[in-house]
Amino acid sequence: MARVVVDVMPKQEILDPQGQAVANALPRQGFEGVSQVRQGKRFELEVDENVDDDTLARIAENFLANPVIEDWAVRRVES
Amino acid sequence: MARVVVDVMPKQEILDPQGQAVANALPRQGFEGVSQVRQGKRFELEVDENVDDDTLARIAENFLANPVIEDWAVRRVES
Repeated sequence: MARVVVDVMPKQEILDPQGQAVANALPRQGFEGVSQVRQGKRFELEVDENVDDDTLARIAENFLANPVIEDWAVRRVES
Repeated sequence: MARVVVDVMPKQEILDPQGQAVANALPRQGFEGVSQVRQGKRFELEVDENVDDDTLARIAENFLANPVIEDWAVRRVES
């Protein structure tokens, strides 16, 4: 089995109200120095060794991300 | 400015219905070989250089994760 991480983040030009809410809340709670927060998703997959990178890319693009508004990145990690 | 990534994932003993829904959908769509999917969150923060690791840990634990049901990890990345 291989372990795969897929990071999905809102594209830079897309507003991210969840991240902005966190960024705005931090100074009110006494945490200064955080100028931007963006919130996305992280998926951890357990896949068979014979699942190739092209298949992983299609899974990420079609099922894990919305490519109209999100960027995604696939990487294999140590399990 | 420093760039910080905070990964937030459901603890292993916590059910993850979003991840399970993806895992169950993949074979129906013709993608075999993915045995587990877990869905969490990824935060990207821009912080001042003088924000220390302890402060980042408190931000992650108090604002980005729910430590009752989620594990979190903070790491500084190349910006």
